[in-house]
Amino acid sequence: METIKAGVIGLGRAGQMHLHNLMTIPEIDILQVADVFIDKFSDKISDLGFTNQTSDYHDILNNPEINTVFVFTSTDTHEQIVTDAANAGKNIFCEKPLSMDTNEEASANVLKAVKENHVKLQIGFNRRMDPQFHNIYEQVRSGKIGTPQVVKVTSRDPDLLPHDLIQRIGGLLFDFTMHDFDIARYMMGSNITEVYAKGGTLIDPTLKEINDIDTLALVVQFENGAYGLIDNSRKAVYGYDQRVEVFGSAGMLKAENVSNSTVELYTKDNETKKNPLPIFTQRYKEAYTIEMKAFVQSLLNGAPLVATGEDVIMAQRAAIAAQKSIKSGKPVKVDPVFKL
Amino acid sequence: METIKAGVIGLGRAGQMHLHNLMTIPEIDILQVADVFIDKFSDKISDLGFTNQTSDYHDILNNPEINTVFVFTSTDTHEQIVTDAANAGKNIFCEKPLSMDTNEEASANVLKAVKENHVKLQIGFNRRMDPQFHNIYEQVRSGKIGTPQVVKVTSRDPDLLPHDLIQRIGGLLFDFTMHDFDIARYMMGSNITEVYAKGGTLIDPTLKEINDIDTLALVVQFENGAYGLIDNSRKAVYGYDQRVEVFGSAGMLKAENVSNSTVELYTKDNETKKNPLPIFTQRYKEAYTIEMKAFVQSLLNGAPLVATGEDVIMAQRAAIAAQKSIKSGKPVKVDPVFKL
Amino acid sequence: METIKAGVIGLGRAGQMHLHNLMTIPEIDILQVADVFIDKFSDKISDLGFTNQTSDYHDILNNPEINTVFVFTSTDTHEQIVTDAANAGKNIFCEKPLSMDTNEEASANVLKAVKENHVKLQIGFNRRMDPQFHNIYEQVRSGKIGTPQVVKVTSRDPDLLPHDLIQRIGGLLFDFTMHDFDIARYMMGSNITEVYAKGGTLIDPTLKEINDIDTLALVVQFENGAYGLIDNSRKAVYGYDQRVEVFGSAGMLKAENVSNSTVELYTKDNETKKNPLPIFTQRYKEAYTIEMKAFVQSLLNGAPLVATGEDVIMAQRAAIAAQKSIKSGKPVKVDPVFKL
Amino acid sequence: METIKAGVIGLGRAGQMHLHNLMTIPEIDILQVADVFIDKFSDKISDLGFTNQTSDYHDILNNPEINTVFVFTSTDTHEQIVTDAANAGKNIFCEKPLSMDTNEEASANVLKAVKENHVKLQIGFNRRMDPQFHNIYEQVRSGKIGTPQVVKVTSRDPDLLPHDLIQRIGGLLFDFTMHDFDIARYMMGSNITEVYAKGGTLIDPTLKEINDIDTLALVVQFENGAYGLIDNSRKAVYGYDQRVEVFGSAGMLKAENVSNSTVELYTKDNETKKNPLPIFTQRYKEAYTIEMKAFVQSLLNGAPLVATGEDVIMAQRAAIAAQKSIKSGKPVKVDPVFKL
Repeated sequence: METIKAGVIGLGRAGQMHLHNLMTIPEIDILQVADVFIDKFSDKISDLGFTNQTSDYHDILNNPEINTVFVFTSTDTHEQIVTDAANAGKNIFCEKPLSMDTNEEASANVLKAVKENHVKLQIGFNRRMDPQFHNIYEQVRSGKIGTPQVVKVTSRDPDLLPHDLIQRIGGLLFDFTMHDFDIARYMMGSNITEVYAKGGTLIDPTLKEINDIDTLALVVQFENGAYGLIDNSRKAVYGYDQRVEVFGSAGMLKAENVSNSTVELYTKDNETKKNPLPIFTQRYKEAYTIEMKAFVQSLLNGAPLVATGEDVIMAQRAAIAAQKSIKSGKPVKVDPVFKL
Repeated sequence: METIKAGVIGLGRAGQMHLHNLMTIPEIDILQVADVFIDKFSDKISDLGFTNQTSDYHDILNNPEINTVFVFTSTDTHEQIVTDAANAGKNIFCEKPLSMDTNEEASANVLKAVKENHVKLQIGFNRRMDPQFHNIYEQVRSGKIGTPQVVKVTSRDPDLLPHDLIQRIGGLLFDFTMHDFDIARYMMGSNITEVYAKGGTLIDPTLKEINDIDTLALVVQFENGAYGLIDNSRKAVYGYDQRVEVFGSAGMLKAENVSNSTVELYTKDNETKKNPLPIFTQRYKEAYTIEMKAFVQSLLNGAPLVATGEDVIMAQRAAIAAQKSIKSGKPVKVDPVFKL
Repeated sequence: METIKAGVIGLGRAGQMHLHNLMTIPEIDILQVADVFIDKFSDKISDLGFTNQTSDYHDILNNPEINTVFVFTSTDTHEQIVTDAANAGKNIFCEKPLSMDTNEEASANVLKAVKENHVKLQIGFNRRMDPQFHNIYEQVRSGKIGTPQVVKVTSRDPDLLPHDLIQRIGGLLFDFTMHDFDIARYMMGSNITEVYAKGGTLIDPTLKEINDIDTLALVVQFENGAYGLIDNSRKAVYGYDQRVEVFGSAGMLKAENVSNSTVELYTKDNETKKNPLPIFTQRYKEAYTIEMKAFVQSLLNGAPLVATGEDVIMAQRAAIAAQKSIKSGKPVKVDPVFKL
Repeated sequence: METIKAGVIGLGRAGQMHLHNLMTIPEIDILQVADVFIDKFSDKISDLGFTNQTSDYHDILNNPEINTVFVFTSTDTHEQIVTDAANAGKNIFCEKPLSMDTNEEASANVLKAVKENHVKLQIGFNRRMDPQFHNIYEQVRSGKIGTPQVVKVTSRDPDLLPHDLIQRIGGLLFDFTMHDFDIARYMMGSNITEVYAKGGTLIDPTLKEINDIDTLALVVQFENGAYGLIDNSRKAVYGYDQRVEVFGSAGMLKAENVSNSTVELYTKDNETKKNPLPIFTQRYKEAYTIEMKAFVQSLLNGAPLVATGEDVIMAQRAAIAAQKSIKSGKPVKVDPVFKL
């Protein structure tokens, strides 16, 4: 069996979740792991069998045996690490976005490095690989509902995040809504050309202090003439809520929120109970592994990447447009053409 | 039993449906019926027991025994008939809108006549009395989901309408979306202050010739800070589709589309079948009767009207704003203050 | 329009419900109504427009204009009235069973009178016309699930009945389970050849005093080799519960209990709510009208009867077998052959 | 962390599935593995990191470092291996049943060895740990539906098994229905005292040659007065079907079959699709791991065993009674008292 010789950069909460998933994929050999706070994680990671550890990710980039790196560090480091990895000739898996800089130039520079070095870069748009959403995607592509005309994405987090975390990951639009822009565009098979967004702090007014919002409702126009509606909330008290609906000339496809329960209770008060999954790690558990397996297939067999640098740029442009729209109170055009 | 002495004006398709519903309400005595094409309907209506027939609705207005009129004529006659009925001192039930004139002044004049003559006018916003939507309304009002933050309305017709019919009833925004504006506002308990709408002819491009659209996606802002999303289509091949979702600080309420079937078929191909109701007369069958019963209670016992003239003005303003927004490509403000 | 000239016998609770349904069927002209306690109902029935009233059903049987009678009297009168009506040459609609006598001879005598007088008799097995169950029936018949192998019927009443009412209508097996035997046999298209039943008073031990039970679980064998399972309860606190499932070589069909609500509430406690219909009059509202319409079609156009005398005998035999099985603790054979 | 020093006996299909689950439980250290056909599995198992392999399970029993054995061998070996393991002083996890001998004495002898050697034995009644069923169990226990009165278990395999496999694992009643007897008894918290069963070969008549059946419908009586209904089929073309319903004095709990899809497709033909899980390994994936974790808790912390030797004896008695009932055509009593 041909295997990928991998290095993992970033061993925090997200990194560890991904690490466990990577361990279940036999085609991936993890030769080295890195984290700036390696001492903090050393024992735990050693227990998993990864003893070749470093606090400096350059050690991984300089390791000639390694051909692929998985980047799970905080968003503010993506730009530097991915650029360095590309220049070191490594294939790269990285979470979105590629840069904290809302100016697109920073991301474009990263992608240029990827292109010039002829390496592969897959972006962690995990929702594309969610079995529910992927099933819809495939049915839409196969023409089951004819020409898609409207896509609706409902995406709600179970609770507010700490302000300092928000500042590190980029706020609702760049951390959260970007996924929705991407899934909407993925379903439609067409680029977003305009965004009109309404957003505010209906839950936590103190978010204004860090220039963030907690509630969002927006309409987008796609290049192919179709429309999209997205609504977001940071706090759905009943749990993580992720739904997609695509309406077309020959039908509709929708994925209701995923629950882990089929139990129904009927009482005098006609009560029944269902339990939505509480958090993204559970909701997208399978997706996280599937996206890695798809990356493996791309590296070993030339299968297409699940999500590319262009995809992240397109979602980022939509998020930037949404931000401008909220500020200006006007619809904002999005350039659907991408050229490096 | 105290009864309402009623006259019915308009005996076409809608009129006959309403007439059958009115017959099931013992508090309503129908003394006279009118239609400009009375000859066409005479036999059928006589069979139902209504032999006091006229082609001139003024006969009903001049009938001193009659205290209440039900107006089921085509939209372009509402303005005149309702004004005349008010001036004749009759209580009035009338379908929305009050005027084909998108200028609000015409509707306001009708309402002035209603006000000056101290009669009651109930608007046929039947969806408010739909058992599903009304149940959501009551739970929202009773605080079950805390402060409402986002309302979503999906409303799709099963098929395109003939162009000439569209021209008589006012196009998608004034015939169809007005109901959605009203139900969104009803759920929120707050007026719409801004509309941004995207609309086009994704299904039937010839609709452009009569200045209409078949697909619509829009975002509204409510006075209380909340947001709303509405999407419309004229042609859902799977049947009439009417759904409402209200999201709030303490939970979410949603009404899925109504089906007349609980039968599930499981085969090798994992197929199951459900049958959405095909058309509004079936979907809102109960609502049409309940709104009449509520009107009766308002007349006999002073219960509040289900929907008032102000309600129709507010929905109309939103529709006008949506029309302007589609044309201009800009969000359009809506005045939430109503004064006669 | 050809119409049926009808007389209605029995104006109690059931009779009035049926009367309202009959009023909606234009092909039925009700010429006369009868009830032994006619004074009690006279005003109410007059208000509905039925002024030709009598306390003696023989007046209806002697009315030469009447060709069809609807019998809604209490069970203990069926035997006499149906026999008299048949001998008077009237077509008959009657609720099951035909006789309180658990000895089949009494019912057979009634059917002989029906046969000898060449009149039509339809039994009120209304569940056959329930849209859900009828849809399953049609799909089973059309081969959608291949050869049916197992049928399951769950049938639960919302609450205990008064003891005196039970004594008049025949106890759980003859009042309630008979419907389930019939629907099971209807779905299977095969006669029951054996019953093994377990029954007891798990809810109200005082039912023993009147020789009745409140809970029942049984297995039947069909002539075609298939099996059936039926479970009954007199008290489902969450409401009336009526479900059918048919499993076959090529699939399964099932009808979940009918609710009047599609509203879902999601809160911190993950609560959702649905409201099963509370009582049979609501659950089988449509079925009650449809069975009458089908009877009309049989009389006017020779369509097959929804349920015949043989059907009621077969269900009765199963109920008798169940009763014997509970008493003896043994399975009891049922004769699948019926001959007058 | 205290760990269990384990040996695994049986590395066939079931054994490998369990082995993967055991690997995810950090408290379990697998020191040695055994299979009579060890050469066949050696490489695959070595790849997983288990290099201490043997073809003779006595090597594991003689290994003084090992305190617990997991027995995943074919049913016909259970009696010998579990007895040997008990005599060697090892704690034991074993799939049901304990003996192919339908005479209870064989199983009782095994349990005597377990008792005399003061070791723990957990039976693989995995369905008890299925999240859906366990949730029902807990709600029943906590009184949510009052006194349980009726339990219904529907259990259907997706396809016929090869005849030779059936002969090794014991036929429908002993391989399949035993799980249903156990789950019914588990839900009720009461022993079965009588079984009446109807069974036959409605799918594959050649099963008669090996004295097996493919379709089963039965009624049981519980010691506490409640009833149970179980129906089985070997071939549900739509996939594995596992449902439980418990009805009680204060409500009902039911677990619908588990699907891996929330996607709904609506088209002109009103088709929607759901995908039941195809096979038990997927349906009970979590249950298989949870039962092992529970066993660990029992060994390390004295938590109660999920399922004991008495549980398997009780289910076996029910299966034997069902077999006798089918043969004799009579209900068969089951002794609810168990004493070693």
